Amino acid sequence: MLFDFIYYNPTRIHFGKDSLNQLKGELESYGETILLIYGKNSIKKIGLYDEIVKILNEGGKKVIELSGVMSNPTYSKVLEGGKLVRENNVDLILAVGGGSVIDCAKAISVSAYCEGDAFTRYWINFEPVNNKIVPVGSVLTMVGTGSEMNGGSVITNEELKLKNGRVYPSEVYPKFSILNPEYTFSVPQYQMVSGIFDIMSHLMEQYFSGNDNNTTDYVIEGLLRSVIDNARVAIKNPNDYEARSNIMWSATLALNTMAGLAKEQDWEVHMIEHQLGAYTDCAHGMGLAAISIPYYNYIYTYGLDKFVRFAKEVWHVSPEGKTKDEIAKEGLVALESFIKECGMVTSLRDLGATKEMLPLIANSTVLGGGYKKLTAEDILTILEACY
Amino acid sequence: MLFDFIYYNPTRIHFGKDSLNQLKGELESYGETILLIYGKNSIKKIGLYDEIVKILNEGGKKVIELSGVMSNPTYSKVLEGGKLVRENNVDLILAVGGGSVIDCAKAISVSAYCEGDAFTRYWINFEPVNNKIVPVGSVLTMVGTGSEMNGGSVITNEELKLKNGRVYPSEVYPKFSILNPEYTFSVPQYQMVSGIFDIMSHLMEQYFSGNDNNTTDYVIEGLLRSVIDNARVAIKNPNDYEARSNIMWSATLALNTMAGLAKEQDWEVHMIEHQLGAYTDCAHGMGLAAISIPYYNYIYTYGLDKFVRFAKEVWHVSPEGKTKDEIAKEGLVALESFIKECGMVTSLRDLGATKEMLPLIANSTVLGGGYKKLTAEDILTILEACY
Repeated sequence: MLFDFIYYNPTRIHFGKDSLNQLKGELESYGETILLIYGKNSIKKIGLYDEIVKILNEGGKKVIELSGVMSNPTYSKVLEGGKLVRENNVDLILAVGGGSVIDCAKAISVSAYCEGDAFTRYWINFEPVNNKIVPVGSVLTMVGTGSEMNGGSVITNEELKLKNGRVYPSEVYPKFSILNPEYTFSVPQYQMVSGIFDIMSHLMEQYFSGNDNNTTDYVIEGLLRSVIDNARVAIKNPNDYEARSNIMWSATLALNTMAGLAKEQDWEVHMIEHQLGAYTDCAHGMGLAAISIPYYNYIYTYGLDKFVRFAKEVWHVSPEGKTKDEIAKEGLVALESFIKECGMVTSLRDLGATKEMLPLIANSTVLGGGYKKLTAEDILTILEACY
Repeated sequence: MLFDFIYYNPTRIHFGKDSLNQLKGELESYGETILLIYGKNSIKKIGLYDEIVKILNEGGKKVIELSGVMSNPTYSKVLEGGKLVRENNVDLILAVGGGSVIDCAKAISVSAYCEGDAFTRYWINFEPVNNKIVPVGSVLTMVGTGSEMNGGSVITNEELKLKNGRVYPSEVYPKFSILNPEYTFSVPQYQMVSGIFDIMSHLMEQYFSGNDNNTTDYVIEGLLRSVIDNARVAIKNPNDYEARSNIMWSATLALNTMAGLAKEQDWEVHMIEHQLGAYTDCAHGMGLAAISIPYYNYIYTYGLDKFVRFAKEVWHVSPEGKTKDEIAKEGLVALESFIKECGMVTSLRDLGATKEMLPLIANSTVLGGGYKKLTAEDILTILEACY
């Protein structure tokens, strides 16, 4: 822990099979007007929509709805929500869904009373928020982003072809989040697997930077092993409650800021994927999976010791009689095998990218990199390797 | 994660070399009267007392002092503090010291306005607190108990010869805690090593119970490896900032409730040690170290799979060609070697216990046990094995 840090995470988590019972009590802290936001029809199919509306009605709440939040929530959807908030003087935004819905809720929360263009001010210029922030609560139905216990909000501006992420301070975190692993049972396998890689990528992006010996790195290794072991169970049996709940909680811990404290961090895989997403609208986790292997193969020699540690502690690679390079490579091969074993996507072509898009994506990606600062040419090389 | 849980931890942590700079801002949220509580002279020796008094004065605060908090804080000290709180209408209790001082501060916080005998109501009958709770803040100078980010408060009632612990809800957690690893540099080696085992014991007590495959178990394995690796560095060079800071933060994470979520837990080593402490006033961590090896040797066959996992994941014991029993035993031998390597105490005699005390300790210990429910005779057998 070499850097100073502040750790403060005031989200109240209600976790488990009966966690929705806590919604009633949480709602008592807020005024009567609730903006209920959700995606397409999945929460209606599993009966969750009806349950929640019943609780809201019993609590004497007036419910405004914003539905149709898409998997890469757009700024125009945020503006639509902001208008509803202002017109109805909304007291609480209740997000029911996955990370996209919660990200969108936070975006509406900070944008509704923003003067001027919120996307420019908050997602491009990263200004601090000094207007009124509408409180957000969440009921999680899909895991991966960790948005249920952090200030992250990734929004796609369709006009500008920009998918920008922003981490807001604790005032914007959900006040409460309800996590029932059973709600994730009906998530299609493709989405579940995509979420699993999103979790792994969050952990690896925080892990693969710096050569420090940070407590957080040990925690990340533990969380990675938990995700790997439980993913193998959940892919065989999506209704395995223990496996799904371990994945769900690992996702929250992976990105509730704890796993990145006092550490240098990378996030270049996410930077590349955000632009891939802006061009293809692909599933976020699948994009990350496709990019990760060529990316790590491209940069591992610059952070060799950490990749050796990754191989040994996460994948149990035996170091005996091997060079550091061999150990590190064996770890990356294990990661690649796992990606294939889970049925994750390894080619950008399968995600809808065309050859023509690659230089556009490379040239619009925010440049960075944990162990090696990348150029647009480096990124193009990486993209071509996973096309 | 098989059990439902609520996770809510609103303590704000300021961590690092410059973290004391945050005290001024934190103080602004409270009224003018501060009860400053601390132990003996160590905070004066390192200049911290003067720094803090200066910040309090500059903030226009009126300072009341309660010094001389002992390593096993007594109920009579708690009553002394409660009287000061009532007489001066204290707005914030600022604890400067280790876990004992913070535990004492929380005890004063809940007891000051309690009607009737607080020890009986809160530490024996475990009643919920419904009187006024005075806010607590802390500046940590010694690591181990995790009291800086939880609701734990262990108090010794000298008259009753009872050392009882209680975990209070989040209203009693420190509102803020300032953690500067440099303050721990001057802690004597004996105390540092004692704190290190306290951390390990917190982790093991949460780990060794149940046969679930819980995300939290993976996190605990990571934290144990962090403590072990960094302890080896810190014992050789107590001024190694990175090692001391990793130990400090591991201690906080080990007992901020995260590592025990949704898990069965044991805590029998702590139960035995609390009575050992009531009779001998020994250093808490040293008592835990002495008891742990005979305790785990006594019960490991009842939780064999978990002890096998402990050996492999924490101590990197190779399982090849070995029975489960052999692997588990090798893990416990590794733990014992580490205890000796660190210069921890392994005999109750060295902690001031007499042969006559052993049955008194055994008969007064709260009975429990993660894998095997113990009787007073079992405990006596364990105590005799570490005498």
